[in-house]
Amino acid sequence: MLIIDCHGHYTTAPAALQTFRDAQLVHFKTPGSKPPSAPAISDDEIRESIDKNQLKLQRERGADLTIFSPRASAMAHHIGDEAISTAWGRVCNDLIKRVVDLYPENFVGVCQLPQAPGAGIAGSVAELERCIRDLGFIGCNLNPDPSGGHWSAPPLTDRYWYPFYEKMVELDVPAMVHVSSSCNPNFHATGAHYINADTTAFMQFIEGDLFKDFPTLRFIIPHGGGAVPYHWGRYRGLADMLKRPPLPQHVMKNVFFDTCVYHQPGIDLLAKVIDVDNILFGSEMVGAVRGIDPETGHYFDDTKRYVDALPISAADKHKIFELNARRVFPRLDAILKSRGL
Amino acid sequence: MLIIDCHGHYTTAPAALQTFRDAQLVHFKTPGSKPPSAPAISDDEIRESIDKNQLKLQRERGADLTIFSPRASAMAHHIGDEAISTAWGRVCNDLIKRVVDLYPENFVGVCQLPQAPGAGIAGSVAELERCIRDLGFIGCNLNPDPSGGHWSAPPLTDRYWYPFYEKMVELDVPAMVHVSSSCNPNFHATGAHYINADTTAFMQFIEGDLFKDFPTLRFIIPHGGGAVPYHWGRYRGLADMLKRPPLPQHVMKNVFFDTCVYHQPGIDLLAKVIDVDNILFGSEMVGAVRGIDPETGHYFDDTKRYVDALPISAADKHKIFELNARRVFPRLDAILKSRGL
Repeated sequence: MLIIDCHGHYTTAPAALQTFRDAQLVHFKTPGSKPPSAPAISDDEIRESIDKNQLKLQRERGADLTIFSPRASAMAHHIGDEAISTAWGRVCNDLIKRVVDLYPENFVGVCQLPQAPGAGIAGSVAELERCIRDLGFIGCNLNPDPSGGHWSAPPLTDRYWYPFYEKMVELDVPAMVHVSSSCNPNFHATGAHYINADTTAFMQFIEGDLFKDFPTLRFIIPHGGGAVPYHWGRYRGLADMLKRPPLPQHVMKNVFFDTCVYHQPGIDLLAKVIDVDNILFGSEMVGAVRGIDPETGHYFDDTKRYVDALPISAADKHKIFELNARRVFPRLDAILKSRGL
Repeated sequence: MLIIDCHGHYTTAPAALQTFRDAQLVHFKTPGSKPPSAPAISDDEIRESIDKNQLKLQRERGADLTIFSPRASAMAHHIGDEAISTAWGRVCNDLIKRVVDLYPENFVGVCQLPQAPGAGIAGSVAELERCIRDLGFIGCNLNPDPSGGHWSAPPLTDRYWYPFYEKMVELDVPAMVHVSSSCNPNFHATGAHYINADTTAFMQFIEGDLFKDFPTLRFIIPHGGGAVPYHWGRYRGLADMLKRPPLPQHVMKNVFFDTCVYHQPGIDLLAKVIDVDNILFGSEMVGAVRGIDPETGHYFDDTKRYVDALPISAADKHKIFELNARRVFPRLDAILKSRGL
């Protein structure tokens, strides 16, 4: 059995990446200035940033492969404009591609998108196509709130997003619904904005009929589905009140939750109320919560331990750790099959 | 043992209330028009609206007393302006007072506040004082987002709110953190906005130091604390990362969760991770989810059944059903004691 972590970010990228970003934002604010050129980062710098962090933790914790994307909080689609997001996205995605090329057995790429408040979706369609076809990526992170906490974009069920979904279907790739940092002081990024976005997206899917229009469209809602499994009765009841079909038919053929829930009782609940076919192993490491839980003596985000401890069959664990990811990411399955895995 | 439901709304008010509201909003949009006078509602109309609904359900489900407030989704602080919210709040609160006077053993009052986007907090201070001192209410519902889904107010830890907190402390009353309806199409009210607000408020309390300034200030975060118990490990870890004290000292002396979680596994999780002293029985009925759970044959919001089924001691259930509410609402305790209860 392979252990596939569906949710990892390059939070440890070499400092030159941030230097580029800083220069980019100075350029944005300086009329007539030239945009900075792509950061010069050596293979050794990449190796150092990965070996000591994600690769070390993969080995220590027993994961084989991480579905890897740029740092989510740094996407910051609310900063700059579409051109800035486009240049930033290319640089970040190209860097993920280099990580994957250096460690093809350990990482596979997922892209960020050049979203921006008020911008159209065509740029995201183009970058998705580039990352999937040219860079060999297997999915993307889609931000339902490019405004960074002001929620000015239309809901995910709106036709605004349809050209992007058409491209996702054509390329047969899923999206993780993932906001970025928050510029609204009400929302702490990882403590409120992320979780709220997960909950919000799920409720949008209940209200809408998106999966009638796109029966094969697939979303991963990270952080264990936000508040949804804890309030599973509320969501079943709301679907009923809104005269929607039961959730297994209406939403759960298309929506999957990861296991980024940082304590055993949460993972226990997730596995109890959500069908095992809808759960993908994920850790979000190195990410949101980096410390050691004094109650267990283990890292909060060592989520494999919680899944290992679930009172479910080995076959079900195999689904959570490997088979569901291969089903939700067919391009990952193809890559693994080409390696005889 | 008394069964005290800490979270009930007057969602079944006579139609004249909505007629008043409609007239109020026509007045708001019509320069030079006269505001409508308070709706004429007879005692019989109130009785009919209560007998068949909240009172019937109290009896059927075995609750004794409901801490009762105006319909939360109808507060709609984002509609009109502060003057509109003030008139609307008075009418709604006065109607709650009449319910309490008609059924003093079954209901005790909690008020809505005349909040409005961009308005100061002085009007809310005044209405709180009126409702507590003149109407005999025991608490209030405080809306952290009067904009209705745009989140334009400062966080709950901001000094903007301090005059209100000073009055809460002076009067020794708690607030339930409760948003109203959403005018942002991203957020379904009861399926996303409510839950997000709960999660958001808790994270604001972690980030801030509010309870250093107000050691006796008390908040109930409804809907089982939003996403918080499910992600309890994340919040413990974030407190640690942000160099905040451990949650029991930092937040949980002042923050309480209700049991408005509409399935057994959710309540099981709540009772497992949250100290029993921080849990108040609540049902939010007649409210967000009105149907029958096909998996159990019982109403989703019949939350007493879930608490009854918890594998905890009778003494702990006594805390959840009665003692914690009497501790968090000292004015309720005084009322009950005056009745020899």
